[in-house]
Amino acid sequence: MSGVLFERVAFIGIGHIGSSLARLLRRDGLATTIVACARRQETLDTVMRLKIADEVTTDMAAAVKDADLVVIATPLSTYVEIGKAIAPALKPGAIVTDVGSVKGLVIRDFAPLLPPTVHLVPGHPIAGTENSGPESGFPEVFNGRWCILTPVANGNAAALDLVTRMWKSGNMNVETMDANHHDMVLGITSHLPHLIAYTIVDTATDLEDTLKSEVIKFSASGFRDFTRIAASDPVMWRDIFLNNREAVLSLLQRFTEDLTAMQRAIRRGEGDKLQELFTRTRAIRRSIVEAKQA
Amino acid sequence: MSGVLFERVAFIGIGHIGSSLARLLRRDGLATTIVACARRQETLDTVMRLKIADEVTTDMAAAVKDADLVVIATPLSTYVEIGKAIAPALKPGAIVTDVGSVKGLVIRDFAPLLPPTVHLVPGHPIAGTENSGPESGFPEVFNGRWCILTPVANGNAAALDLVTRMWKSGNMNVETMDANHHDMVLGITSHLPHLIAYTIVDTATDLEDTLKSEVIKFSASGFRDFTRIAASDPVMWRDIFLNNREAVLSLLQRFTEDLTAMQRAIRRGEGDKLQELFTRTRAIRRSIVEAKQA
Repeated sequence: MSGVLFERVAFIGIGHIGSSLARLLRRDGLATTIVACARRQETLDTVMRLKIADEVTTDMAAAVKDADLVVIATPLSTYVEIGKAIAPALKPGAIVTDVGSVKGLVIRDFAPLLPPTVHLVPGHPIAGTENSGPESGFPEVFNGRWCILTPVANGNAAALDLVTRMWKSGNMNVETMDANHHDMVLGITSHLPHLIAYTIVDTATDLEDTLKSEVIKFSASGFRDFTRIAASDPVMWRDIFLNNREAVLSLLQRFTEDLTAMQRAIRRGEGDKLQELFTRTRAIRRSIVEAKQA
Repeated sequence: MSGVLFERVAFIGIGHIGSSLARLLRRDGLATTIVACARRQETLDTVMRLKIADEVTTDMAAAVKDADLVVIATPLSTYVEIGKAIAPALKPGAIVTDVGSVKGLVIRDFAPLLPPTVHLVPGHPIAGTENSGPESGFPEVFNGRWCILTPVANGNAAALDLVTRMWKSGNMNVETMDANHHDMVLGITSHLPHLIAYTIVDTATDLEDTLKSEVIKFSASGFRDFTRIAASDPVMWRDIFLNNREAVLSLLQRFTEDLTAMQRAIRRGEGDKLQELFTRTRAIRRSIVEAKQA
């Protein structure tokens, strides 16, 4: 539909989201040549076998040379190292974007590493399953979901437009937002829920063995949703919590206060208070169903 | 397949689970006559319109008269009142069962109200969606799920067998267990996850309005699973927390300790600790997928 948007696209990192985007570029003919860069040769062998990219390399500078678009799709802890490695090799006018779940640090720590001749468009497609690796990607994963772009001050309008068109080709709803505001919104909708899911699954694993095997056996209600969330990529999530620390800790503080109030109501047998609260939370679910995010 | 198990079955309460079981009895020809009792005439009108029962009444004693099986499918807070109302009307040899999510109180508070000539078989089909009311029921809701029966001491073996055959007709995996052990297993797999889901949705509703509307809009990841859980029936869940108080509070204590440790690791930037924990929780998910409860 869109036609070629970029002659040469380089992916730094080609896991679940990176490979999904590469497949989208292919499916819709948005790129002429796709280069994939990963640390491990094994990953690149998989990429070639699945025909996700035209060229592969473990050398970041070589990957981005002559690229019109560079997509960073690696855990957040690697951004600074990547910025330093690719900066000297980027061609003037190249667009650099990313798919990371925290955006404040991209503006703060990554942007200053790039030469002034390239255009940075930080992005976050809110999509994906709990699976990892290039085998797990598929272009429809973006379908109907939101993509948030957090443009830099005085950013290049043409670059923003091209990245927007790329995500729209995957049928995403693209929105722009301030990076710090993004980190707070995602803190409550995604990061805090993941933290809690990880914790409750951890609590269950610490129960004595008999009980633990029964927890797995009878996990039909409630618990299995948490385990799905808690099966997400460990390194990616470690980096999210470390890099969105302030927002997560402040939201966690609010949650803990609310949980303590709930605990108190149960201990004191305050049924009316519990029922009233449970009735309120139902309304939020309805809003989400109406917003078609369910 | 099973043929008629009970000539006359009376339902006290005919909501999501009650009406699903009534539909199952019908589908498989397990009962000759089905009587439904509810407090509100409106509910009974729906039941008649949907042909879920043959007879309806708001009078509990009239409903259970001559019944071979009585199914209690109401919130836990109504059990004592129901026990008192039906006890004088139960015919000798009648079987009384229930579908409640907490079993200790059935043995402790409900069993002593029944005459010694009837057979109590406390039960808990671990099934259901977040929807409520007789319209929301369907017989396949039990398919492949667990049903836990918690027999009373010196209970009637024939009664236990009949109730087991009824649930097996719905393709449930039926298991017997001590009532207090059931309450601990369900406390961690179901009650604590629901409590936490209710709390986080509550935390989100207390955010300032701009943020709240964005939470709804961008709820794709993590949060929407919690809102689904937090949309469950408020009265049913109020009663679960009040009636499984000890198990829930002791599990909540463990969870809070684990959450505090997580908070500390984030604040101190202990990446290795976080990654190690997130890797462990992945294994639990695999066990659940293998146990086919996912």
